[in-house]
Amino acid sequence: MRPVYLDNNATTRVDPRVVSAMTPFFTEQFGNASSMHAFGSEVGAALKRARQQLQTLLGAEFDHEIVYTGSGTEADNTVLLSALETQPGRDEIVTSTVEHPAVLALCQWLQKNRGIKVHYTPVDSRGRLDIEAYRKALGPKTAIASIMWANNETGTIFPVEQLADLAHDAGALFHTDAVQAVGKVPMDLKTSEIDMLSLSGHKLHAPKGIGALYVRRGVRLRPLLRGGHQERGRRASTENVPGIVGLGVAAELALEHMHEEQTRVAALRDRLEKGLLQRIGNAFVTGDAENRLPNTSNIAFEFIEGEGILLLLNKEGIACSSGSACTSGSLEPSHVLRAMKVPYTAAHGAIRFSLSRDNADEDVDQVLAVMPEIVEKLRSLSPFWKSSEKATFAPTYA
Amino acid sequence: MRPVYLDNNATTRVDPRVVSAMTPFFTEQFGNASSMHAFGSEVGAALKRARQQLQTLLGAEFDHEIVYTGSGTEADNTVLLSALETQPGRDEIVTSTVEHPAVLALCQWLQKNRGIKVHYTPVDSRGRLDIEAYRKALGPKTAIASIMWANNETGTIFPVEQLADLAHDAGALFHTDAVQAVGKVPMDLKTSEIDMLSLSGHKLHAPKGIGALYVRRGVRLRPLLRGGHQERGRRASTENVPGIVGLGVAAELALEHMHEEQTRVAALRDRLEKGLLQRIGNAFVTGDAENRLPNTSNIAFEFIEGEGILLLLNKEGIACSSGSACTSGSLEPSHVLRAMKVPYTAAHGAIRFSLSRDNADEDVDQVLAVMPEIVEKLRSLSPFWKSSEKATFAPTYA
Ligand SMILES: Cc1ncc(COP(=O)(O)O)c(C=O)c1O
Ligand SMILES: Cc1ncc(COP(=O)(O)O)c(C=O)c1O
Repeated sequence: MRPVYLDNNATTRVDPRVVSAMTPFFTEQFGNASSMHAFGSEVGAALKRARQQLQTLLGAEFDHEIVYTGSGTEADNTVLLSALETQPGRDEIVTSTVEHPAVLALCQWLQKNRGIKVHYTPVDSRGRLDIEAYRKALGPKTAIASIMWANNETGTIFPVEQLADLAHDAGALFHTDAVQAVGKVPMDLKTSEIDMLSLSGHKLHAPKGIGALYVRRGVRLRPLLRGGHQERGRRASTENVPGIVGLGVAAELALEHMHEEQTRVAALRDRLEKGLLQRIGNAFVTGDAENRLPNTSNIAFEFIEGEGILLLLNKEGIACSSGSACTSGSLEPSHVLRAMKVPYTAAHGAIRFSLSRDNADEDVDQVLAVMPEIVEKLRSLSPFWKSSEKATFAPTYA
Repeated sequence: MRPVYLDNNATTRVDPRVVSAMTPFFTEQFGNASSMHAFGSEVGAALKRARQQLQTLLGAEFDHEIVYTGSGTEADNTVLLSALETQPGRDEIVTSTVEHPAVLALCQWLQKNRGIKVHYTPVDSRGRLDIEAYRKALGPKTAIASIMWANNETGTIFPVEQLADLAHDAGALFHTDAVQAVGKVPMDLKTSEIDMLSLSGHKLHAPKGIGALYVRRGVRLRPLLRGGHQERGRRASTENVPGIVGLGVAAELALEHMHEEQTRVAALRDRLEKGLLQRIGNAFVTGDAENRLPNTSNIAFEFIEGEGILLLLNKEGIACSSGSACTSGSLEPSHVLRAMKVPYTAAHGAIRFSLSRDNADEDVDQVLAVMPEIVEKLRSLSPFWKSSEKATFAPTYA
C-alpha cells in the first residue's frame, strides 16, 4: 500500500524535474551571482531565466518586479513593514480575520508594539469576505490592505482584483498573500491593480526555503534584510541560486499542469468530497464551494476530534491535516473556522484534504475505504456524539 | 586546464556528500516538519540530528541554542534588531569599521531612522581591532557589541572571547558574525561568553539559502520573521528541511576536515602568498598575518586596478575577488581596506585569494604561472606606475 499524501497545502513534493534542474547549481555552477568571474556570471544567466519563468506564471509585466525571499512568511512580513515605513502618514492596516499567521501574527505585534491600527475584516459562514466592511475599513490612514488570494485551510478564493481596486480608491497599497494560489489558479498581474504579492516555493513543487515577492514597478519597497546589494537592494543575502532556479522550473511546470489542476485534480477532489459526504453523516464542507481552489476540501466531521482522525488516518498511511500545519499541536480549533463561526462541535472535527498533481485515483479510493470506519469508531467513543443522538448542525449551518 | 576557484570566501562548492544527504528530502521525505503525520515526523527526526551536528561544530551546550535562518544576513539583522527590542533602555551598538554590510548597512539605517547611536571601533593598519577604543565605547547604554570572528576580506581574526568578556563587563550582549570563521577555526561556545553567533551555510560547503543563529540559552531573542511557531517561536517559516540537513552534514564534514584546513590548506595559501610576493614587486599582504584564517590571503598589488587583474585572471580560468563580492561592481576600494588606511594606490589593486579543501597544488601553480605577467601588463598600462617608477608604499606601510 503506497502512502497517501493529501496534505499539499502544508507542503508539496518537489518535482523530480525541479530537483534535476537545481542539482548542477550545488556542485558545478556553484558561484556567487555577485562575483565578477565566470563562476558568477554563469549563475547570473540562470537567475535571469528563472526570474522570467516566474514572471510568466504570474503574468507580471517586468521580470525585475520579482524579489526573491527565503519564505512566504518573509515575503508577507516584508510587505507590511515596508508599507508602513514608506508611508509615514498612514498607520493603519486592513486585513482579514482568516489570513495566515505570517500576516496575522505580525499585525498583532504591530498593534501592540507600534501603535498600528489593524482592521480585521470579517468573513461569513462560508469564509467569504465582507466586502462592505472591507470598504468601510479603508481610509486616508490605510497604508496597505492585505487580503489573501486563497485561504490555506478552506481553499476559499477572494476577489483580489476587486479588493485591489477598492484599496486604490482609498489611496492605499494592496497586497495579496498568494502562497496557496500561485500555481493553482491562473494569474495575470499586469492587468490587475495588485501592487504586491507573496508566494512560497514549497507550495508549488519547488523546494522549501525559497519564496518570492512581486512588487509592481514604481511601488517602493523598504528591504527587511539589509546588507549587500542583491535583488537591486531590495533583499540582502547571497542569492539562493539552486532555490531560485528550482522555483523557476516549478513555475514553468505549474503553468504546464494548470489545466490538469483545474480538471483532473479538481475531479479527484470532488469525488473524494462527495464520496465522504455520501458515506458519513453529520459532516459538511466548510468554505465557499463555488469559489475554491481546485485542490482543497475542508470537511467538518461533527462531534469528534480532528486530531483523532489524523492519528487513525496516519496509521492507514494517509496524511492530511486539521487546521494549518503551523498551529497543529494546539487544541483550539483553527482561527479560520472560528472566524467563520463554524460551531465548535464541528470545527474540532474539521479535516483538510489538499491534493496535487501527484495524486491518483487510488488515493481517493483509499480514503473512502477507511474513513467511514474511523469516524464511526471515534464517534462511538465521543460523549458528545452519544448525548446528541445524531442531531446535526450541518443543514442549518451549511 | 581545469578552472581554478580561489573565491571560497564568496561562496563554496557544496560538498557532494552534502548534496547526497539533502536529496531524499526533496522528493521522498518531503513533509512539513510541523505536520502531525508520518511525512512530518520523519523529517522532524532529521532536523534534530542536523541541529546536533551543528551544535557539535560550534561547541554549543544545547542543540536548541541553534535557530535556523535563510542566510547569514538574516542572522546578523535579527540579532541587532532583537537586542534593541529586548532592552528598551539601551539604544547604542558597538561594532567595528570592518564588519560585513549585513551588520554595517543595518547599523547605518538604525542611526538614520531609529536614532540609535553606533560606535564604529577602528582597526589598525593590519586590521586589528583597537581594543581600548572598543572598551571605551561600551557603556550602560550599549545594547549589544557585534564584532566579527574573522574578516571576510583579509581573514584577520578578532579576539572574540575577550571582546565578549568586555561587553559583559558593561552589561551588554555580545554577538559575533562568524560567517567566515565557522568551519575554518575550532570553536567551543559553551566555554565562552559569546551570547550570539551568526553563520551561513554556503561558506562551509552547504548550500546557499540556509543560515543559522546561535543564541545562548537564557538570552532573549525577538523574532525578525513573525508567523508560525517554528524554531520555538524564534523564526517563523516552514523549515528549509533539505537546507538544514545539508548544513548539518556540512558541519560534520567541516569538523572532519578542520585539521586539513589548518595544515594542507594553510600551506597551500602560504605557498601561493610567498610565491606571489617573490615574483612580483610592489606587492604586500594586507591584514594580520599572525592572526588570520588559514585559507585567506589578501594581497595589494600597487598602482593597478584589482578589477583589471580579475578580468585577466578570469581569462585564464582563475576566479578570485577584489574586496567582497557584495560590493563588486563599485569602483571605490573596499571599506575594509579604507578602514585599515591602506593607501589608495595599493587598496585599488587588492586581490583576495580564498582557498578551501577543494583546492590542490596545481591551483597554486597556475596562479603563480600567470600572475607576474598579468601584473606586469597592467602596470605597463598604468599612468601611476610610470610616474612613480617603482617607489613602493609597501615597506613603510606593512
Ligand atoms: C562576514 C560575513 N557576514 C555576513 C555575510 C552574509 O552572508 P549571506 O550572504 O549568506 O547572507 C557574509 C557573506 O556574504 C560574510 O562574509
Ligand atoms: C496562505 C499562506 N501564507 C503564508 C504561508 C507561509 O509560507 P512559508 O511557510 O513558506 O513561510 C503559508 C504556508 O505555510 C500559507 O499557507
